[in-house]
Amino acid sequence: MTTPWNRQQTSTMPSHKYRDVHRRVDVPLVDRTWPSNTIESAPLWVPVDLRDGNQALPEPMDPTRKRAFFEMMIEIGYKEIEVGYPSASSTDFDFVRLLAEQDLVPDDVTVVVFTAARRDLIERTVASIDGIGCDVVIHLYTATAPVWRDVVLGRGRAELLELIASGGRDVLEFAGDLPNVRFEFSPEVFNLTEPDYVLEVCDTMTALWDACPDRPVILNLPATVEVATPNVYADQIELMHRSLARRDSVILSVHPHNDRGTGVACAELAVLAGAQRVEGCIFGNGERTGNVDIATLALNLHAQGVDPMIDFSDIDRIRRVVEHANGIDLHPRHPYVGDLVHTAFSGTHQDAIRKGFAARRDGRRGQPWEVPYLPIDPADIGRTYDAVIRVNSQSGKGGIGYLLETGYGVRLPRRMEIDFARVVQAHTDAHGSEVDAETLWRLFTESYLRDTDGSECGVEIVETHHSPSSVSKITGVLAIVAWESPDSRGWACGVGDSPRSAAVAARRSAGVLAAESQASSASRSYASL
Amino acid sequence: MTTPWNRQQTSTMPSHKYRDVHRRVDVPLVDRTWPSNTIESAPLWVPVDLRDGNQALPEPMDPTRKRAFFEMMIEIGYKEIEVGYPSASSTDFDFVRLLAEQDLVPDDVTVVVFTAARRDLIERTVASIDGIGCDVVIHLYTATAPVWRDVVLGRGRAELLELIASGGRDVLEFAGDLPNVRFEFSPEVFNLTEPDYVLEVCDTMTALWDACPDRPVILNLPATVEVATPNVYADQIELMHRSLARRDSVILSVHPHNDRGTGVACAELAVLAGAQRVEGCIFGNGERTGNVDIATLALNLHAQGVDPMIDFSDIDRIRRVVEHANGIDLHPRHPYVGDLVHTAFSGTHQDAIRKGFAARRDGRRGQPWEVPYLPIDPADIGRTYDAVIRVNSQSGKGGIGYLLETGYGVRLPRRMEIDFARVVQAHTDAHGSEVDAETLWRLFTESYLRDTDGSECGVEIVETHHSPSSVSKITGVLAIVAWESPDSRGWACGVGDSPRSAAVAARRSAGVLAAESQASSASRSYASL
Repeated sequence: MTTPWNRQQTSTMPSHKYRDVHRRVDVPLVDRTWPSNTIESAPLWVPVDLRDGNQALPEPMDPTRKRAFFEMMIEIGYKEIEVGYPSASSTDFDFVRLLAEQDLVPDDVTVVVFTAARRDLIERTVASIDGIGCDVVIHLYTATAPVWRDVVLGRGRAELLELIASGGRDVLEFAGDLPNVRFEFSPEVFNLTEPDYVLEVCDTMTALWDACPDRPVILNLPATVEVATPNVYADQIELMHRSLARRDSVILSVHPHNDRGTGVACAELAVLAGAQRVEGCIFGNGERTGNVDIATLALNLHAQGVDPMIDFSDIDRIRRVVEHANGIDLHPRHPYVGDLVHTAFSGTHQDAIRKGFAARRDGRRGQPWEVPYLPIDPADIGRTYDAVIRVNSQSGKGGIGYLLETGYGVRLPRRMEIDFARVVQAHTDAHGSEVDAETLWRLFTESYLRDTDGSECGVEIVETHHSPSSVSKITGVLAIVAWESPDSRGWACGVGDSPRSAAVAARRSAGVLAAESQASSASRSYASL
Repeated sequence: MTTPWNRQQTSTMPSHKYRDVHRRVDVPLVDRTWPSNTIESAPLWVPVDLRDGNQALPEPMDPTRKRAFFEMMIEIGYKEIEVGYPSASSTDFDFVRLLAEQDLVPDDVTVVVFTAARRDLIERTVASIDGIGCDVVIHLYTATAPVWRDVVLGRGRAELLELIASGGRDVLEFAGDLPNVRFEFSPEVFNLTEPDYVLEVCDTMTALWDACPDRPVILNLPATVEVATPNVYADQIELMHRSLARRDSVILSVHPHNDRGTGVACAELAVLAGAQRVEGCIFGNGERTGNVDIATLALNLHAQGVDPMIDFSDIDRIRRVVEHANGIDLHPRHPYVGDLVHTAFSGTHQDAIRKGFAARRDGRRGQPWEVPYLPIDPADIGRTYDAVIRVNSQSGKGGIGYLLETGYGVRLPRRMEIDFARVVQAHTDAHGSEVDAETLWRLFTESYLRDTDGSECGVEIVETHHSPSSVSKITGVLAIVAWESPDSRGWACGVGDSPRSAAVAARRSAGVLAAESQASSASRSYASL
């Protein structure tokens, strides 16, 4: 096209090296139903931080960090936790033994141990859980995708199926009689495996392990590497959901990674498509770009009115445990938990948030949460409102007013707010950086509480809390109250359209409305503050 | 349910405060077609880093950083760039003036300036582009969602529509006659606005600005705050795509944010649903959790064989510019660009990657890229293979072999590899941390090149490059070649199943196969290396 608005970009990227997923795997689903579904309840969550997450760390967890992580997961409500790959490292083996021997797993929690489908590894896996009191899932995995069959394993479809079945029989041989053990199978890189083959493999395991509703088999379908838009994964899951044998005896589980930055979407669309269980990591650690972030998934449900069944009411504590265990800090823009994610710098956003809070105070309390630009109430996850509004050169009167009000009890009249916003804008344009409440207050006093020659006005409160002081240059009144008594001393100020409203604002911000006697004894000059 | 596998989690989260999106906005689309579509070409990309991204920074960009960022965007191929909100801050105004007065915008690049729908702001916006030589888009936005109408603007539907139309007329009055100017409108929090109302507002602007195929109007539909699974946004976009008036005169644009961690998915599904243009930030900076990451979107297309039309062949340089301008570092697991995203620590992954590389060398070169666990070739974006495989306690023989081979030219025979992996495993289990190639080599020499009493074997190469040295404890042969000539000096070693294959391996790793004369003069003892 040659219309001037459509000048196309050019590039030298060698994209011809790659093929679209539809040319790699055929997903014969056209009558999908998942786009019309909604998520009504939380899936079963299975954090795999101690296994899949751990194996992706430059410095894997030592036993102390691993145990602290495990205990935190139990505390916040996870009921099924993958604890390691005991046949692959002695650290993992020893950790499972610690859980077993010191009886560290509550009765209502199931642990998952991961193993490749090799007889000696399966045997050692079963040895690791010897005598453990809790329920256990033995999680067997094998690569099934064509490239893995050809290049890595050197086995055809039939030969590989027999290898997997053989692993399944080994599991039965070593652990089939243990009443507290169930089984899980993962065909690796499910999303690149031919649908008919992966179905054959899965149904083979369901039959081999004799799945029944009381002792269902977990079939976990990992997007080990993301390779397509998330709707394709949803189609793949719906196809399996509709095709699997003994469906009521199978727990359909998903395990997305995040190579394309769409792990969360893959998990959500997969749940719409019939998945009942989600494996991932808290805040999304894991190989390469990470496993799907099960904290974000849970809080997404929360934000839509669905109880996530996990307690994120102190998200910063959870974050500290995770960061310490993984040795990797979270990004400031990480959904829900990042330092900046409840913060607005933009003036229009700040203005809207402030009005949204005010509306909630003035009658919308108890109604559904609908504060502009805040998908959830930061208080739900233990955050204060302090960080919600911060001021820089992109901010306007809304944010400035908010900071002065929350930090200094000063509620500016509208015309003064506009005037002062210009002062702050000039400052931030000149200095570039963020201004905090203290700097705002300094700018405020310099602008309005000094004489034209630069000396302080020396505003003096000579008698009582309602003695107002006119403020030059603006149509508004500043009142400052100060008090000193045997019990307390302090000061506060307020601004209003009249001396009376200013004094009321000042007294309200000082919390002295109910303690008139103290406040009325106030006598202090502003200059000495 | 009471089956033992289905013990449900419990929680105290106040999720009842929130409502599902379907109870907030009704999207009457049931016959959606987007899930059957595929993306065949790149959409128009519009980076908004200098405006939306910038307003979310604790420390907004100074003019130097802003200009460096702008120039980098031009270099890598962006053709439409939002450069600021000139009526909101003098920094932004001055930057647009700089572009105009110093003629810094190439002829084939369009700049976008952002403004609220207020007459004085529009006038100042048009003043900022006075005399600019390139094409310009004036981007008008207004909040349209119910909560914003009620709480922030205090206006009903009809009243707000008139305010928006009035802004549109102001734009026409000030800039309608400028031949290089086109118009864009964004109904803010599109995804929470009633579909019939947002359609009415958009069609009003299309008519008011008299859109035609040669001078189309951009209608940009922002998910200013994410509130639902991404399929809902796709439905909303498809509904607009099918309903908009003068569809061939409208460029349908999307602008997702990332509150739910699904911004990338929203953009991709929206493009499937008919969107032609995507606004976002390079690596996803922006308010709160960020704007959608247009670098990830572009590289997702690349990984599926679609040319992104942007040059990411030196991604680390792009990263440095972005990190410097924003003052915020990227996360090590950020898709494509993070430090850890092309790295495998797990033994099975390493083994598969190594075999995948070998298969490419041995005949799959030129075929589509299909190396296990590497969605794209790191070389495409200027990364080396050095970081692909790293070794810790979760690694196996694959990674160890890879590091010894690439770092020291030592290719271990399989039985020796298994034996040596046990040595490394014991070391990493004991020390916890990652081991580099140098440490592996030290472990190797300590394990195989010392006598049982701990003293060095003193392996000595007395004559030529093919003089082998038997290695104790393993079934394999180590050969070391060393040489010294007027031109060069050095050493290399190789291991094989026979003295001959070991010597060949050593000579190959030294690159001396073609320089026999040098190599054959070698004489050096191992101990002195």
